Amino acid sequence: MLVTLCGGVGAAKFLQGLVAVVDPPSVTAIVNTGDDLVLHGLMISPDLDTVTYTLAGINNTETGWGIVGETWRTMERLGQLGGASWFSLGDLDLATHLFRTELRRGGATLTAATAALTAALDVPVRLLPVTDDPIATKVTVADGRVLDFQEYFVKHRHALPVTAVHVEGLDVAHPGPQVLKVLGEARGIIIAPSNPVVSLGPLLGVAGVTEAVIARRDHTVAISPIVGGAAIKGPAADMLQALDGSSSVVTIAERYRTLASTLVIDTADAHLAGAVGEAGMVPVVTNTIMETPAAAADLARAVLAVLP
Amino acid sequence: MLVTLCGGVGAAKFLQGLVAVVDPPSVTAIVNTGDDLVLHGLMISPDLDTVTYTLAGINNTETGWGIVGETWRTMERLGQLGGASWFSLGDLDLATHLFRTELRRGGATLTAATAALTAALDVPVRLLPVTDDPIATKVTVADGRVLDFQEYFVKHRHALPVTAVHVEGLDVAHPGPQVLKVLGEARGIIIAPSNPVVSLGPLLGVAGVTEAVIARRDHTVAISPIVGGAAIKGPAADMLQALDGSSSVVTIAERYRTLASTLVIDTADAHLAGAVGEAGMVPVVTNTIMETPAAAADLARAVLAVLP
Repeated sequence: MLVTLCGGVGAAKFLQGLVAVVDPPSVTAIVNTGDDLVLHGLMISPDLDTVTYTLAGINNTETGWGIVGETWRTMERLGQLGGASWFSLGDLDLATHLFRTELRRGGATLTAATAALTAALDVPVRLLPVTDDPIATKVTVADGRVLDFQEYFVKHRHALPVTAVHVEGLDVAHPGPQVLKVLGEARGIIIAPSNPVVSLGPLLGVAGVTEAVIARRDHTVAISPIVGGAAIKGPAADMLQALDGSSSVVTIAERYRTLASTLVIDTADAHLAGAVGEAGMVPVVTNTIMETPAAAADLARAVLAVLP
Repeated sequence: MLVTLCGGVGAAKFLQGLVAVVDPPSVTAIVNTGDDLVLHGLMISPDLDTVTYTLAGINNTETGWGIVGETWRTMERLGQLGGASWFSLGDLDLATHLFRTELRRGGATLTAATAALTAALDVPVRLLPVTDDPIATKVTVADGRVLDFQEYFVKHRHALPVTAVHVEGLDVAHPGPQVLKVLGEARGIIIAPSNPVVSLGPLLGVAGVTEAVIARRDHTVAISPIVGGAAIKGPAADMLQALDGSSSVVTIAERYRTLASTLVIDTADAHLAGAVGEAGMVPVVTNTIMETPAAAADLARAVLAVLP
């Protein structure tokens, strides 16, 4: 059994590659929930949904988020009414949130609601929210305001300089019922190329998760989300610059060296392989840019080759 | 100022007629909220919405409910997921519920959320929910089950025999902030041709409302929802049969005689005018079937002619 620690888009692409080269039911994805929000009364889990839609083969590859063939009837009307429409909820996507919210209001945990949703969409991989307890990533921006993550990320298009990130609820959140067990039993653990601060940070901050990964360090491989000092997508590089003072694969190695023995870096960063080694991780150099499902599958093969 | 006590479709049609013959801003509609429900986390107010959509001119006259030009993308997908789709929420209609729920979660009362929605839809009539407190109509059916109103009405298509109706929360519900004031100040009060048991019953059960209407009995006119022993729409006749033992305009007179001085009945019931008089209400015989907006306007004129 392989476990992948996941944020959103980068993790989803990697998982798509992974299930192309291993038996999908042997894969478990532990997914960040720090981005989750309640909007219009609906319980929305952006990272879980991105992974779900991608593995269900219904993700929108043009936009990079949401569902293929999506329409926007409800949002357009909501905008006309003067309602908050900055967080776009497509008509098909809304069904996911209605489904999840109804189950959760009926007493189901997020883990159970996720299992029901992935079953309905024939997702062959087990998805585990890292916690069933509410956690909420908050971003402090340069002018001192503390924003909800999606407010920062979507409403302000992650364009505001970040000075701090913290996660509300982490101090009392318990890991999901199977999370520590699968980390302990996995043949290998893969840290997906997701934002280390706001995607994997909250996930790793849930009680016991970091310790469980550290205990499996020799079986854990991380994939750098940073290529040539920049992020493929999103604000990871800017955040690392602001919080760690640098944003190279070496910065990633410094963050992950206690968790994982190996760091997969892109060929563009081959010249930093030595520095990654000095920072305490075994560097593996390959193409990490998943422009196609085939490239994602190649990356998955490279990762599998490293696992003991 | 004219006040109409309202349920859903019958009231909405009457109001449409009324605003055709009087200045719309002089009309206030006090609307039942006993049918309200929370579904998928969304706060839904079916009677308020029916009145709103009708007065906004966007009601669907083919189905008799919902919005013209409605589509069902979200519901279709929700059905595919295996979610609860018995209560059909169209894509445009969903925007109403997202809008209301977001406002209410932000602290707005139902009265304030209703004002915002009707303003956004250019509804020229003031709509007042009878209460801002949660009340919930429950229907006991012949096999002893107690159903939520919409479960009985929509899921079971009001086909189950009803043995009792009660309204949860009525004992602690306060009237909306302007409800008693407008009842006291109205030039006339009109009891719309709505279901007396499950639409007007909950409304009249809110503390002080019945007393406020009784105090204005000489200025109050009721329109019978029963024509020829049957309801134009919905289960009113069956319910009256079950609970009152009969379902004629005389049954209506017996329910309303302490509230209103006059009962408008249909020409089909002209032969019962004497019995209505004996039951304690002044009968007015006219066409009450609002097949067209013109017929609704005629009915409104007949009602206005009776008011002092």
